[in-house]
Amino acid sequence: VPGSRPRYAFLGPAGTFTEAALRQVVSPDEAEYLPQIDVISALEAVRSGTAERAVVAIENSVEGSVTAVLDTLASGSPLVVLREVLVAVFFDLAARPGTAIEDVTAVAAHPHAWAQCRGWLAKNLPGVRHVSVTSNTTPAQALGSDDREIAYQAALVPPAAVALYGLVTLAATVADNPSAVTRFVVVGPPGELPAPTGADKTSLVVHLPTNRAGALLEMLEQFATRGVNLSRIESRPIGDELGRYSFSIDAEGHLSDARMGEALMGLRRVCPVVRFLGSYPRADGVVPQVRPGTADASFADAERWLAALRAGHVK
Amino acid sequence: VPGSRPRYAFLGPAGTFTEAALRQVVSPDEAEYLPQIDVISALEAVRSGTAERAVVAIENSVEGSVTAVLDTLASGSPLVVLREVLVAVFFDLAARPGTAIEDVTAVAAHPHAWAQCRGWLAKNLPGVRHVSVTSNTTPAQALGSDDREIAYQAALVPPAAVALYGLVTLAATVADNPSAVTRFVVVGPPGELPAPTGADKTSLVVHLPTNRAGALLEMLEQFATRGVNLSRIESRPIGDELGRYSFSIDAEGHLSDARMGEALMGLRRVCPVVRFLGSYPRADGVVPQVRPGTADASFADAERWLAALRAGHVK
Amino acid sequence: VPGSRPRYAFLGPAGTFTEAALRQVVSPDEAEYLPQIDVISALEAVRSGTAERAVVAIENSVEGSVTAVLDTLASGSPLVVLREVLVAVFFDLAARPGTAIEDVTAVAAHPHAWAQCRGWLAKNLPGVRHVSVTSNTTPAQALGSDDREIAYQAALVPPAAVALYGLVTLAATVADNPSAVTRFVVVGPPGELPAPTGADKTSLVVHLPTNRAGALLEMLEQFATRGVNLSRIESRPIGDELGRYSFSIDAEGHLSDARMGEALMGLRRVCPVVRFLGSYPRADGVVPQVRPGTADASFADAERWLAALRAGHVK
Amino acid sequence: VPGSRPRYAFLGPAGTFTEAALRQVVSPDEAEYLPQIDVISALEAVRSGTAERAVVAIENSVEGSVTAVLDTLASGSPLVVLREVLVAVFFDLAARPGTAIEDVTAVAAHPHAWAQCRGWLAKNLPGVRHVSVTSNTTPAQALGSDDREIAYQAALVPPAAVALYGLVTLAATVADNPSAVTRFVVVGPPGELPAPTGADKTSLVVHLPTNRAGALLEMLEQFATRGVNLSRIESRPIGDELGRYSFSIDAEGHLSDARMGEALMGLRRVCPVVRFLGSYPRADGVVPQVRPGTADASFADAERWLAALRAGHVK
Repeated sequence: VPGSRPRYAFLGPAGTFTEAALRQVVSPDEAEYLPQIDVISALEAVRSGTAERAVVAIENSVEGSVTAVLDTLASGSPLVVLREVLVAVFFDLAARPGTAIEDVTAVAAHPHAWAQCRGWLAKNLPGVRHVSVTSNTTPAQALGSDDREIAYQAALVPPAAVALYGLVTLAATVADNPSAVTRFVVVGPPGELPAPTGADKTSLVVHLPTNRAGALLEMLEQFATRGVNLSRIESRPIGDELGRYSFSIDAEGHLSDARMGEALMGLRRVCPVVRFLGSYPRADGVVPQVRPGTADASFADAERWLAALRAGHVK
Repeated sequence: VPGSRPRYAFLGPAGTFTEAALRQVVSPDEAEYLPQIDVISALEAVRSGTAERAVVAIENSVEGSVTAVLDTLASGSPLVVLREVLVAVFFDLAARPGTAIEDVTAVAAHPHAWAQCRGWLAKNLPGVRHVSVTSNTTPAQALGSDDREIAYQAALVPPAAVALYGLVTLAATVADNPSAVTRFVVVGPPGELPAPTGADKTSLVVHLPTNRAGALLEMLEQFATRGVNLSRIESRPIGDELGRYSFSIDAEGHLSDARMGEALMGLRRVCPVVRFLGSYPRADGVVPQVRPGTADASFADAERWLAALRAGHVK
Repeated sequence: VPGSRPRYAFLGPAGTFTEAALRQVVSPDEAEYLPQIDVISALEAVRSGTAERAVVAIENSVEGSVTAVLDTLASGSPLVVLREVLVAVFFDLAARPGTAIEDVTAVAAHPHAWAQCRGWLAKNLPGVRHVSVTSNTTPAQALGSDDREIAYQAALVPPAAVALYGLVTLAATVADNPSAVTRFVVVGPPGELPAPTGADKTSLVVHLPTNRAGALLEMLEQFATRGVNLSRIESRPIGDELGRYSFSIDAEGHLSDARMGEALMGLRRVCPVVRFLGSYPRADGVVPQVRPGTADASFADAERWLAALRAGHVK
Repeated sequence: VPGSRPRYAFLGPAGTFTEAALRQVVSPDEAEYLPQIDVISALEAVRSGTAERAVVAIENSVEGSVTAVLDTLASGSPLVVLREVLVAVFFDLAARPGTAIEDVTAVAAHPHAWAQCRGWLAKNLPGVRHVSVTSNTTPAQALGSDDREIAYQAALVPPAAVALYGLVTLAATVADNPSAVTRFVVVGPPGELPAPTGADKTSLVVHLPTNRAGALLEMLEQFATRGVNLSRIESRPIGDELGRYSFSIDAEGHLSDARMGEALMGLRRVCPVVRFLGSYPRADGVVPQVRPGTADASFADAERWLAALRAGHVK
């Protein structure tokens, strides 16, 4: 029964980078792919129960609004990140079969894709005209259709979209920064956490206690004192009024790590809002350096020592 | 001669929120408005000398990519922020004259506009279909044209776009959060700084010395020790490899303030990159609280005291 | 049986300020007073089992070496502070009966007593000669004896010593700083701790992890992050080589307070030596301000919250 | 003319460890030695102009009150430290010629000397009686006199005192900790500072702005942010009431170092009292590690950079 396969909402249609991320997570044979028109819809599909999982870009995106993802995770009913996935971001310059690169006078591209390929275009297609489109796959669909009125001869599209829409590649691996990577996350409802792997991240949203100088510093000291490093921090306007900020944070480590637990409890005590958004394996697998005295064994030793002191066993 | 008027690049076409921000800065009688297809083009127009100024969204945007703005300011030839402008963000539901709200079965909207108005639409146009478009003004232009093949009857557009394209308003001030505001900045080439007003901001890009735990904290202490408060901080991937971050920062105060100067020198000494992106008046005019001992007079007193000590005058 | 009364070692002989402190703790009817020749002997008497308690000066002393007390507590078999006692420090100018103040040309005084009364002596006995003595009671004993060869006519002695040695007071309450107070502590072997009163102190000895810049700061952040204030901190040379220091610390709060427990565990994890020297009521009874989020209830709430998160109950 | 030689006040009489420190500074041929009865008198001799210099113990002393030195430097008319000197602290067990060690049943010793030699005495003279004396040289003078009524046969005295008073050594280099060292300082009136050597210390007295949690931390951050390490910190009761503290601090570096100057200005701005007590070469000659970005050249570079920014030269 197809309905028994897990359903994954993602920014569609077929051929997007987000779909490429989703393919890394689960094959279309094992899951039902549910394309959505935007990232908010993808996340809401999980909240409403239409899907078990959503795959959305979370950083450095050429596709979907990272801001919308962060803001949607930060409020509303709880969702957690279960996994992260990296996708290399480069484009194919695609056209209808029979088109030569010399015929190209206008190129369709999402503004982010255009920005990403600016240098390449200036060098290889000097003077070419940019036709702005809503998404990376829109022009692939258009070129793949029978429509004769299209105002461009080629488009910058995700590699996976070329064959899908019956196009051919005029130039492959187009990108000014060949090491550009987008980070995607798999999001689901709260429940059992992914097991710690030793190379994990924990995502949080934290509001500062007050707006005064030093409040941010005090918040960060909750992490630093316990030896928890941050890999990402972004202030986001809270939205009720300009000037109040929440912080979207990725911290190195897993909720089950003693140091992470103590840091989170510290935040919980002094910050008006602490929202847990998941502990999950890092896509890059890098094992963070654990500072001396902050491993679980050190926490356990200190707890035993304190218990002994409190029982009067001073050494 | 029109050419003698200053030229302002902005995200066009006419009718965008960015144009509304630009109108707050300078009237079309006094400046030449140069619409651009994206925010990067607007900023590059200043770099290339095609424009004297650019107006771009810098935070909480429903229009243009804030990320692209931050990244474009952070590298390439220097640009500085000269002023900030706030624009209230709400939409008109616009249609061709003669359309009734009951006729509307599909609404065109940029995904961000749609997200901003989700609640209103669910309540007032339940079941309406979303047609995604590239920009806030695209559907206003389409509805304003003779095209009979359009797949929607109404669109969410900036209020300024309604009359401009010969449309009428079916519902005004549509927005789920009526206090939503977007922050825009006026950007120009380096040169003389705006004079300090007592209610100023300084924008910076700073790279951390290392990736180790505590490096972010040490960077922030450069501000805190001198009593400089931050109003915004965002980590941005540096781009050469995932996991290295730069920080985009707004600090309260002006480059000419003694405490800001000392904090910046502190950063300069310990961080590999410190890029100054301007000191300019805050749009909200809020005068920050200056902590005791951090006003210019305290700095001057301390300098005299140190000079006396070094000359052997110990009291 | 006298032996069944608890034995208190103190810096003797009878009449010292230390004895005055001891009298505040327990009357001579209820305890055996064991005078010692120095503070180290008093503390060692507890270690050897010769006494159940020792009373010694710990701060701002005119009697006994505070340094010796701190160093003796910091090494050797464990001792803990059980209580603190304050004694106002002023002297009587005492002499043999029949002596007039006009007859006084030389005054015996311990150097610390002399220092404490310098201003008074300059004003009231200008030109008087100082005869330095080993302790505050030595000249009281000498004047009280039959010895005719004594090189002074009067002495600065603790008020309690005057009648004890058969002397009379020429001038009472002699002290340049009338609010001078010495802090004494009652020391015993480890065991059951004094119950928390809400106005407690915890004494510690802590060695820094390394000698590098910032190590002291990191140690203090272990307290500050948990909202624990310090009321005293002194660096003491460790003694193995010049330049290595240990820190003698009084922190506000009791070992049983959650914030104190977590701070101590933090120290235990990152510092090579953390020695607990007791939790006991403050003599001044001042209840410290507890920062929001650092009371026991906040710790308990945070623990429940973390446990729920770890069980998958994300809200 | 002898009067033209500089006059050095010190804790006398001849034969003290302080005199040994003074001999390292200047020979008796080149200076007039002015023995004083206590360390306060030695310091006051400089204030009154009776002496040009004073030599006093400042740390880990077996002689004179370090506390009294710190407190005397911390208030009254200004004095500064000009140099520090280290003296190894061990004793000779001295007696009248003809005395055998077997004859010794009582040993005179200052309580600090006794404490320092406790282990040796227990092993080599088990059961010997302690006769407490006011200073390290008192028993040397007594044994060297004709007095036949002395209640001891030997004394622990500084090595220099043995021959001086006509005694002989029964046991040399007596000390439980053979590496014990006392730190002395040479103190003078303010004026020209000793030139920086690259291995210098700066001594300060600082009062905290308030008593609240974190005030100490903020004070220390003034040093840490500029990369200035502390080698000693002691809280001292201010004396007006119990519970208010001043801090006696030794910081690594010289007043003329840019980082030290900026740290001191930072303290000056936020602390009610900052008293400079001198910059002088370290006796141990150890060159401190200078953190990257805190050398004078880095400060000069940052100043040039800031000046350029303020002039509009943004790069």
